[in-house]
Amino acid sequence: MKVMPLEERVLVKVELTQEKTKSGIYLPDTAKEKTQQGEIVEVGTSEDFNKMGIKKGVKVIFAKYAGTEIKIDNEDYLILNKTDVLAKVEQ
Amino acid sequence: MKVMPLEERVLVKVELTQEKTKSGIYLPDTAKEKTQQGEIVEVGTSEDFNKMGIKKGVKVIFAKYAGTEIKIDNEDYLILNKTDVLAKVEQ
Amino acid sequence: MKVMPLEERVLVKVELTQEKTKSGIYLPDTAKEKTQQGEIVEVGTSEDFNKMGIKKGVKVIFAKYAGTEIKIDNEDYLILNKTDVLAKVEQ
Amino acid sequence: MKVMPLEERVLVKVELTQEKTKSGIYLPDTAKEKTQQGEIVEVGTSEDFNKMGIKKGVKVIFAKYAGTEIKIDNEDYLILNKTDVLAKVEQ
Amino acid sequence: MKVMPLEERVLVKVELTQEKTKSGIYLPDTAKEKTQQGEIVEVGTSEDFNKMGIKKGVKVIFAKYAGTEIKIDNEDYLILNKTDVLAKVEQ
Amino acid sequence: MKVMPLEERVLVKVELTQEKTKSGIYLPDTAKEKTQQGEIVEVGTSEDFNKMGIKKGVKVIFAKYAGTEIKIDNEDYLILNKTDVLAKVEQ
Amino acid sequence: MKVMPLEERVLVKVELTQEKTKSGIYLPDTAKEKTQQGEIVEVGTSEDFNKMGIKKGVKVIFAKYAGTEIKIDNEDYLILNKTDVLAKVEQ
Repeated sequence: MKVMPLEERVLVKVELTQEKTKSGIYLPDTAKEKTQQGEIVEVGTSEDFNKMGIKKGVKVIFAKYAGTEIKIDNEDYLILNKTDVLAKVEQ
Repeated sequence: MKVMPLEERVLVKVELTQEKTKSGIYLPDTAKEKTQQGEIVEVGTSEDFNKMGIKKGVKVIFAKYAGTEIKIDNEDYLILNKTDVLAKVEQ
Repeated sequence: MKVMPLEERVLVKVELTQEKTKSGIYLPDTAKEKTQQGEIVEVGTSEDFNKMGIKKGVKVIFAKYAGTEIKIDNEDYLILNKTDVLAKVEQ
Repeated sequence: MKVMPLEERVLVKVELTQEKTKSGIYLPDTAKEKTQQGEIVEVGTSEDFNKMGIKKGVKVIFAKYAGTEIKIDNEDYLILNKTDVLAKVEQ
Repeated sequence: MKVMPLEERVLVKVELTQEKTKSGIYLPDTAKEKTQQGEIVEVGTSEDFNKMGIKKGVKVIFAKYAGTEIKIDNEDYLILNKTDVLAKVEQ
Repeated sequence: MKVMPLEERVLVKVELTQEKTKSGIYLPDTAKEKTQQGEIVEVGTSEDFNKMGIKKGVKVIFAKYAGTEIKIDNEDYLILNKTDVLAKVEQ
Repeated sequence: MKVMPLEERVLVKVELTQEKTKSGIYLPDTAKEKTQQGEIVEVGTSEDFNKMGIKKGVKVIFAKYAGTEIKIDNEDYLILNKTDVLAKVEQ
């Protein structure tokens, strides 16, 4: 299933909390929590995204409770409005 | 009964959750739930729909609690505003 | 009593649920419920109604809880704003 | 006391429910209730009122809970904004 | 103390309910209640006040719960926005 | 610490209730209450302040619950938006 | 991790309450509280920041409950909208 966000929206894959605890134990998926970070998977047709440097692969921080949650192949995604994307993250 | 949405509205047939359980058992209609996905059945007269690629037969994702629910021949439809259509889905 | 809606408003006669049960028994008026459908009885002076095809006799679907309810000769009518008329119905 | 509504406002004398019961008994004033109908008593200086046919003596329907209630000589009046006047009534 | 309302605001001295009961007994100040009427004491610099006939000495009716209450020499005044002044009163 | 309000904001030193009771007893600081009056300490860069006569030293009345409270050297200040400054006070 | 706020947003490092009590005792980190002050760490691409003198290193006061809290290397940061930055602080 391919989801194409419309106009000023983006599709973001939500990041889960880190995979390992501090003591190095790997967490099962069910013990992870959703963060306010994610990776852009698709962008809408708005020309602003180009100006903002928002494209596929970019990591972003988004506003709390923003957007519409969807599941694709059992993973968490968000359809976010451009205005709910607050910052880019470089690691 | 034919429903013609006005101006910036669309008529969407709401998709129900999948017909089969993982173990392959078919679910009766009453055990299915409405999703946030559906198929465009009619579009209003707004020219934006053309630009957005929103036309009859296109599958879309819409915002939660958006629109006005109606029943046509005992099936669930939504009249949605253009701004509540978030993304197109290709399968 | 003749009610002339002002500017961008319409007067709609609210439809009640069907007169017969599935088994063919006629329901008394008190057992009927108001629907979100109705028939345009009068339109205001806004020129948009012409463009939208909204005129006397047209059946429409309107938003839930929209408009102002009035009784004329003991029948239920709504004064609705143009934006609360969502779709036309052809039967 | 003369009340002159400002700009886009009108002064409306609120109609009470009918004076007689169905069986023809006259109700005392205290048993009457305010309706959503009334008669225009004064209009503000907005030129729209002319276009809308809103002038002294015209009967109107107004939105529920709209406007500011005032008492003049112990009678109920409303100062209403133009947008809360929904329809004209001809009897 | 002189209070000069800014721009589109007016200073209004709030009227209290009548001084005498129907039977002619004078009420002490503490038994009086504030009304939604008052007298303009100062107007801001907005040119609209001239057009509206809102100037010092004019009696007005204002919206309920509108404005900011202040005490000057132990008397009740309101600083009101132009839009909360609903009507002029002539007696 | 010097606080420079940005653009359409002002910094106001909040006035406390009077220092003496009617009987002439001086109140300790802890028995004083904040009022809706204060003195302009700094203004932002908006040109409107000039037109409004809002500058350092001017006493003003402001809207209830408006602005952001800050403490400078243990005294109460407010950063207020231009629109929350209602009137100037001359004593 | 480098966070680049988008367009009209800034990244602010939130200041904690002072490190010493009045009696000179140093507080552990867990006893400190977040203030409404902070230091600009990054600014978005909006040209207004230049005009406002908002750049890296500037200390600012921001509105209560404004912005989105994030943790970078276990320290508290806020992504704030331009309009929630109320004043600059010079010490």
